[in-house]
Amino acid sequence: MSSLRGIQQPELSKKLYKLIKTENHQVSAYETASRESQSVASQLSEWGETQDDAVSDISDKLGVLLAEIAEQEDLFAQHLEDSRGVLKQIRNTESSVQPTRNHKTKIQDEIQKLKYKEPTSPKLVTLEQELVRAEAQSLVAEAQLTNVTRQKFKEAYDLHTAAIIERAEKQIMLAQQARRLVNLLDDTPTVPGEERAPFENSEAAREVLNDAEAGLRNYSPSIEPIHSAAGRLGVNAMPGSIEQEAAQPRIMQQAEEIVQSPQQQETVGRGGQVPYYSTSETTYVAA
Amino acid sequence: MSSLRGIQQPELSKKLYKLIKTENHQVSAYETASRESQSVASQLSEWGETQDDAVSDISDKLGVLLAEIAEQEDLFAQHLEDSRGVLKQIRNTESSVQPTRNHKTKIQDEIQKLKYKEPTSPKLVTLEQELVRAEAQSLVAEAQLTNVTRQKFKEAYDLHTAAIIERAEKQIMLAQQARRLVNLLDDTPTVPGEERAPFENSEAAREVLNDAEAGLRNYSPSIEPIHSAAGRLGVNAMPGSIEQEAAQPRIMQQAEEIVQSPQQQETVGRGGQVPYYSTSETTYVAA
Repeated sequence: MSSLRGIQQPELSKKLYKLIKTENHQVSAYETASRESQSVASQLSEWGETQDDAVSDISDKLGVLLAEIAEQEDLFAQHLEDSRGVLKQIRNTESSVQPTRNHKTKIQDEIQKLKYKEPTSPKLVTLEQELVRAEAQSLVAEAQLTNVTRQKFKEAYDLHTAAIIERAEKQIMLAQQARRLVNLLDDTPTVPGEERAPFENSEAAREVLNDAEAGLRNYSPSIEPIHSAAGRLGVNAMPGSIEQEAAQPRIMQQAEEIVQSPQQQETVGRGGQVPYYSTSETTYVAA
Repeated sequence: MSSLRGIQQPELSKKLYKLIKTENHQVSAYETASRESQSVASQLSEWGETQDDAVSDISDKLGVLLAEIAEQEDLFAQHLEDSRGVLKQIRNTESSVQPTRNHKTKIQDEIQKLKYKEPTSPKLVTLEQELVRAEAQSLVAEAQLTNVTRQKFKEAYDLHTAAIIERAEKQIMLAQQARRLVNLLDDTPTVPGEERAPFENSEAAREVLNDAEAGLRNYSPSIEPIHSAAGRLGVNAMPGSIEQEAAQPRIMQQAEEIVQSPQQQETVGRGGQVPYYSTSETTYVAA
């Protein structure tokens, strides 16, 4: 099922589509790890119930800390999912740019065929005007794509790396408290028939849990900010200072220059080959 | 299959058996998370190949850092497995103590029956001598169990928490370098037809990877040690200062006192009930 859906993805977004799918598996793996770690934590506490007072108290409280460490694993999975959502915005833009590229190639193909079959056809003029419009549309689409890609790339990996750091910092704090707790258990060996001294660290163990709770409550991440200059990006994925309508004449002129340029003429002349993609993509537009 | 095997576990080690089994799933989940994260890292690098120079370079190097972060996840799974191996030593001791407990109960049961059926039987004297020996064996076994439990409990959670801290510290370092890398990408929006300036941070990006490598190379964990007083534990899970043979007469005397004590007599008198376990366990010894 999923591989069939993969085939339907336009060429341009295929790689990112695959990455986003694998990230889904990655998120699931961390969710599973969190669940299993939660189970381990409660089973440790259950085992402790069958033990002497000291082992029982320490293992119960250690279970609490391990459950909290497991909880952070689930939070991490959620944050990875957020980062994944941002990458989807790049993939969607990639998908939406594909028809624009296809449309331009289709016109270039038509011009090429007509020049060969009917070099004096008046339809050539219409087609070349159409190509200029397609080129203008393409210039806009490609600018949008690079703008969205860079902005969202930075945003996605800002979230992703911040999630790694948050999980790590909280888990270090919790694991350090867990070590303090384990140190409260005396493992001096006994001889047969000797009773162990009563457990006197119950209060200290309670203190460890309080400190861990306070640590989580007062947590704030220590990360260097990731800077973005994309704040000015308007709804059309263009710099906010650019008014779409005012820019239109300039873009059209630029598109015309590209279409009339010797290089472009030559490209069309060489049999409709374009640098970006294969014409097999046309089927996607028709679909 | 696995639940049938669970049933065969002696009562005493059932809870720890379950915990160790769940930890196996936990380890697997982290191995999966590592594998999926590795795939995500290489797919990011592959996607980058289709992008402009800047995005290509940054995403390729970010892929390297993410792959290293994924590698730490696998190392973490290995360390959890080590900790799990230590818990198995407690479970094995628990299993080995079970027959001793069962043996003692069996004799207590026999004495109880005989006292009812044939109160003057000379076999009662033999059985009570046997009970003293069983009690002595039990004293040794229970001392071994508490000694092994406490020592290995501390050792297992020393490894477990140290693994959490090591993964976290290394991943923080790598994620911080990843953020430095992402900051090298300029996401200033472009207007249609505008060319992006050539990527000039290639050297700085290389520097980030070098720093990350050096960071891993020079890594040393910052953990507070977990203290153990079990160092004197001999091969028989007894304090090293105790000579087994020299201790034997004392243990036998203690066992005799326990068997002759009014409380124990009363317990036997109340129908062979013992505080530790149900008699259904006898089937295990026979198996």
